[in-house]
Amino acid sequence: MSNVIEVNGRRYPMMKQPVVIVCVDGCEQEYINQAIQAGVTPFLKKMVEQGTILSGDCVVPSFTNPNNLSIVTGVPPSVHGICGNYFLDREANQEVMMNDAKYLRAGTILAAFSDAGAKVAVVTAKDKLRGLLGHKMHGICFSAEKADQVTLEQNGIENVLELVGMPLPSVYSAELSEFVFAAGVRILEQQSPDLMYLSTTDYIQHKYAPGTPGANAFYAMMDHYLTQLDALGAVIGLTADHGMNAKTDGAGKPNVIYLQDVLDAQCGSGTTRVILPITDPYVVHHGALGSYATVYLNDGTDLNKVAAKINAIFGIELVLTRDEAAKKFELPADRIGDLVVVSERLTVIGTAATRHDLSELTLPLRSHGGISEQRVPLIFNRKLAPIPSDHRLRNFDVMYLAMNSAI
Amino acid sequence: MSNVIEVNGRRYPMMKQPVVIVCVDGCEQEYINQAIQAGVTPFLKKMVEQGTILSGDCVVPSFTNPNNLSIVTGVPPSVHGICGNYFLDREANQEVMMNDAKYLRAGTILAAFSDAGAKVAVVTAKDKLRGLLGHKMHGICFSAEKADQVTLEQNGIENVLELVGMPLPSVYSAELSEFVFAAGVRILEQQSPDLMYLSTTDYIQHKYAPGTPGANAFYAMMDHYLTQLDALGAVIGLTADHGMNAKTDGAGKPNVIYLQDVLDAQCGSGTTRVILPITDPYVVHHGALGSYATVYLNDGTDLNKVAAKINAIFGIELVLTRDEAAKKFELPADRIGDLVVVSERLTVIGTAATRHDLSELTLPLRSHGGISEQRVPLIFNRKLAPIPSDHRLRNFDVMYLAMNSAI
Repeated sequence: MSNVIEVNGRRYPMMKQPVVIVCVDGCEQEYINQAIQAGVTPFLKKMVEQGTILSGDCVVPSFTNPNNLSIVTGVPPSVHGICGNYFLDREANQEVMMNDAKYLRAGTILAAFSDAGAKVAVVTAKDKLRGLLGHKMHGICFSAEKADQVTLEQNGIENVLELVGMPLPSVYSAELSEFVFAAGVRILEQQSPDLMYLSTTDYIQHKYAPGTPGANAFYAMMDHYLTQLDALGAVIGLTADHGMNAKTDGAGKPNVIYLQDVLDAQCGSGTTRVILPITDPYVVHHGALGSYATVYLNDGTDLNKVAAKINAIFGIELVLTRDEAAKKFELPADRIGDLVVVSERLTVIGTAATRHDLSELTLPLRSHGGISEQRVPLIFNRKLAPIPSDHRLRNFDVMYLAMNSAI
Repeated sequence: MSNVIEVNGRRYPMMKQPVVIVCVDGCEQEYINQAIQAGVTPFLKKMVEQGTILSGDCVVPSFTNPNNLSIVTGVPPSVHGICGNYFLDREANQEVMMNDAKYLRAGTILAAFSDAGAKVAVVTAKDKLRGLLGHKMHGICFSAEKADQVTLEQNGIENVLELVGMPLPSVYSAELSEFVFAAGVRILEQQSPDLMYLSTTDYIQHKYAPGTPGANAFYAMMDHYLTQLDALGAVIGLTADHGMNAKTDGAGKPNVIYLQDVLDAQCGSGTTRVILPITDPYVVHHGALGSYATVYLNDGTDLNKVAAKINAIFGIELVLTRDEAAKKFELPADRIGDLVVVSERLTVIGTAATRHDLSELTLPLRSHGGISEQRVPLIFNRKLAPIPSDHRLRNFDVMYLAMNSAI
């Protein structure tokens, strides 16, 4: 095996100890801080003392798919192409899902290491990510959601339910993430992968605030499995795809800007089309409401006028043109709208009120998508080499940092 | 008594029922939301159902004094003059405290109502605010901090410890705020004021995150006293001086920009002077670290160059010139620096590292001062008349809204 693997212009050393990268979905740093304060996560506390605790910026839109893909490619969406769950195909005038690997424009670090002869394993909570994460990768790759359908041929492993010793979890549960961790421990024990990527779901973070019992129980569970991964000798690098904030008033009522309704009323129906790239098949816990939207304008619609209308809405943080957004957030310009809109920390953006079903929101809305959810943890169970002070740390540096610590 | 009292250009109706305005120091809306979720605040829950729940913007800098003064004058600091605890007297080259009423440039609603014959009472947690709040007001005005030194002549009331039935609380305690509420209930019961202003301290909010046991206990205590104020027939209007956010990484380490150190290194020692208007005699719970600073430049120092240096620092959200800041935040231009600097939600600004003693910070830093702490609750135990949709609600609308609901 070669000593250095180059992927998307970055050079990664071949590891001498197993490296486990954990992406904790929706892990606002305060979850970890409060869990440590509550005394329920002794291993995280030990990482504070014996490892390295950093913060970094995730990709905006602070959604799951763009960030998971950045973490496994080491580059922003301008390079890998995945900038949300949906974009608008102008030709077909149709919203298109970007879950298919055909939309991926860069190879993954996982695939490159497996090509170079490393044993690689990926376990993701939801199946929507599996195809993208496992693209062109040899090794183990499956989702907790479909752990009962895993085959050696398709997923590089079989009998996963038996291996893990847990029943198939519901897609809306803390157990879906626990299954990921439990599987990670078993795989590390029994198959000794060189590189493993574990990616959870933010079901709990959408429901529970940092430091509250539901959140602390999740982090205590995580702590238990991290302890085992550490005991098995893994170099652990932990980050998040995005943070998480309350999006409500003091009574728990969501602060929603129904942007399509506003624009239809102010600019005329049919002149604009609001796309919410957070939309995916699993919307129960956030009602497809996040702090980021893109707006496509019909021919002849005045871009500056629409931008000014949006800027005047209470709760909007930022409106950028396609080019400005592509530059500022490192996004693929051909897959975002004519305008990119970000709402402030406590506010989310919807399309039309009639298109959002909030009846399943049994708890006050917590969500993400904006700049307010950009800062995420970068935590390691090893001391890292010094990092140049002018380097802006990103969550997609996690593999680079973990692999360099492992030398 | 006249039917309408005009103060600072706004018209307030003389109340027919007692009006109690509560300023809950550092009450990020999420504290209320999580306390309701935890089931510990039945009265707040009832207010959600039977009263009116709104949000509004406080004054930036999101500090205690500017906002308390805005609430009792109904206008921003550009009118009332108090824009922090400290400003720099250029002539004397000295940092000057603005706690003295001589710095107040506008009359208070409290004084105007007392002049018009209304019975007015003010109870504040810390004594630093008493002089400003009670300026030219007839009636009851004292602080919980010095409740043992209250005299009829000075404070319009006596034997307060006996009246309240609590020992003198420590200035660093939840009891300091409880004393304010308990005194408010006794005064309403026994003296029937027409207008009462209760202002607490954010000792608890600096320590505990929303929904955690220490925070929920505080809000349960508050709920108990609000229940009694309501039962006594008061119209209650509740708001906050500012919100509160964690200012740390995942390990609870504060994210601090020591701005004086950076500027000394980059622009030369003695070319700039960083002032932190959060500084006050009570710094134990935040180490004088907030998300707002002003910078004074010595003659000949290039303003644009310094602004660019500050803008390049990771964690800075906004740098404005004096005029820009005076306009955007409605501040008195003669009492702010040449530059106004705001850091982002998770970051605070210090002067020189050697000037901050963080040894008393026994818990992870939570603080305020920035735009990130601007959104605060506006909660009433009555239904309010409809508010024009283009009115930007402010915390200093609370008296106007409560008095109009009371008609």
